Parts: sequence; C-alpha cells; structure tokens
Amino acid sequence: MKTLEQKILNEGTVLKGNILKVDSFLNQQLDVDFLMQMGEEIKNLYSDTEITKILTIESSGIAIAVAAGAAMHLPVVFAKKSMSANVAGEVLTAGIHSYTHGNDYTAIVTKKYISKTDKILIVDDFLASGEAIRGLLEMVGQAGAEVAGITCAIEKGFQNGGDDLRKRGYRVESLAIVESMDESGIVFRK
Amino acid sequence: MKTLEQKILNEGTVLKGNILKVDSFLNQQLDVDFLMQMGEEIKNLYSDTEITKILTIESSGIAIAVAAGAAMHLPVVFAKKSMSANVAGEVLTAGIHSYTHGNDYTAIVTKKYISKTDKILIVDDFLASGEAIRGLLEMVGQAGAEVAGITCAIEKGFQNGGDDLRKRGYRVESLAIVESMDESGIVFRK
Repeated sequence: MKTLEQKILNEGTVLKGNILKVDSFLNQQLDVDFLMQMGEEIKNLYSDTEITKILTIESSGIAIAVAAGAAMHLPVVFAKKSMSANVAGEVLTAGIHSYTHGNDYTAIVTKKYISKTDKILIVDDFLASGEAIRGLLEMVGQAGAEVAGITCAIEKGFQNGGDDLRKRGYRVESLAIVESMDESGIVFRK
Repeated sequence: MKTLEQKILNEGTVLKGNILKVDSFLNQQLDVDFLMQMGEEIKNLYSDTEITKILTIESSGIAIAVAAGAAMHLPVVFAKKSMSANVAGEVLTAGIHSYTHGNDYTAIVTKKYISKTDKILIVDDFLASGEAIRGLLEMVGQAGAEVAGITCAIEKGFQNGGDDLRKRGYRVESLAIVESMDESGIVFRK
C-alpha cells in the first residue's frame, strides 16, 4: 500500500532495538480516516476469500481490526492479555512472549466466540517475530476453526515472522513490508 | 439510543458485583456494524460542538473511539496503561484505580498529541464510578486543552460517575444509561 509506505517515510522514526515508531498514526494517536483506508485495502486483498470473523489481540491490534471489520462488515474478536470480569466460561489460551515489553503473558479468548465453522482472518498492527500471531493461531487451532489469512499494517521483513508463516502455507498479506531500516532510512520490499 | 438498549436487553448479562457483561458486542467480540452506528450517534449528539480530537484509554475504549472518529473524521488518541517503546519524550500521566481489575495503574499519553488548542471529546465504553474519565480529564487539564464533552456507550446511572461529571458542568452524553439492574432485569433511565 503505497500511501502507507509514504506515511511511514513521512512520520515514522527508527529507534534502537529495531523499533519503528509510528505513534502519530497507528500506536498512540490513530489517524482514523487513514485507518479506514487500510481497512478497505484489507477487504480488497481478501476479496476472493470467504471470511466469517476477524481475530486480533489487545490493544494496538483493535483499531486496525475494527477498520477491517467495518470495511468487510464482519465481527471482530480480540484476545485479552489478562483475565477480567468480562471473560467467563470456557476459554482458549496461548502463552505469548512480548519483545516490545520484554515479558510473557497469556492471551485469552472466550471459547464461544470462535466456532469450528469460522473462517478467521487474523489482523494485527505489526508483524515482526510473529510471536503474537503464533499465539492467535494456537487459539484458532484449539477452536478447530480455519485460518483464512493473516494480515498486518507493517511487517518487519528482516525478522522471520511473516516469511516463516508463508513457508507454513498461510496467506500473509502485509500492507507494507520493511525490508531494512536504520537511522539513514527505511527500505520497503518490492 | 434505543437500539443499544434493546441490544443490552437481548445480549447483556448481569453478574455479581454490579457487572454488566456485554462481551458479545462490546467487550470481547465487537459487533463492528453496530459499533459504527454508535459512532454516528455520537457524531449527531455533538453536531453543534467544535471538536478537534477524541481521547480514550486502552483497551476497550479504542473500538468505540475509532467508530466515533470514523463518523466525525477526527483523530483518536488513546492513553496507555503502561510505558512501552512506543511512548517517548514528554508525557502526561494520571493515576487511576480500576474497579474491574481491582488494581491501580498510571495512564500515559505522549504530551505532543494533546495541545492547548485542542477541543477534546472523551470517549469510553463504560462510565460507572468515572475513575477512568477522571484520569483522562486530569491529562487534558495538564495539556491545557478544552474538554468539549464526555461520551460513553453504557453509563451505570446508579453509580455516581456520570451525574457527578454533569454537576461539575461537563456535557456528558451516554448512549444508554442503566438506572438499575439485577438478575430480574435491567431498567434504563428515561
């Protein structure tokens, strides 16, 4: 998505530790009109695929998942990172390591919101090591549902997550793939 | 909003501890088409008010804030509940007590995303004691910005949060106000 690549070049900052900071439109402030355009792009990418539900993980995945859900007229389910009064009954869980926060957590989804007949599109803001996606795939597997695809706004192509998932046969469509980045600039995959 | 009241009656569950569980459309699964209708309703409620930005808090406020932002073509800023690599530079902070999780946390917003000239609409999913809203108001105050209004999907009218804010002069518009609730039923404020 050329407009996203341009936005990353204009507004993104590369920080130490392979961090691409895009907090002006995706991770702290949300450029909602642009977010809705990303949702339309996701709809177009998967227009040939039957999808019944979108799955993401709190909290920065929620905004882009809602944008995709609005474009596709599909419900969104978001995995939680801790138990709360709103999670009750049987649950699906997966242990996930966060490289951003440097900790481990258990992602949780109420079991009844993913059924065997669902065709799930997994949506997140970033795809780097693929650790969060791995956890979401584990939960979809527990539910016996089908994975229709995996999409994210920004894939860090120089980490292994996205390409590993492609090798495993998943249809991964990222709106922008950063091939390399450092203080001198950001290069996107052609 | 009559359609929201009907949805709460159809899908909501009252649990011990004054918990209204609406995880089928607002807190775990998101009914995105309905969410976008709530966004349109918020737009209509504040159509006579100049607003430059929407402020919410992660994570369950993000979805309805994005819906409002989409309807109003406004950016959304969401306060974070912990520091992360995506928060850098000067920040606004406020201590908040969570009755849902039974803990205290510090909400954080990067300072540059709320300026003195902003007219802020605060959006959240629930308004009960008003503790999260109090924290967001504190941060808007630190930034020297103006509060144009406060809105939520579901206000628990039998707790003090919303009415206290109205007494303090804030324009609080809730899409549904629960006057009372127990196992036998839910009554909305007229």
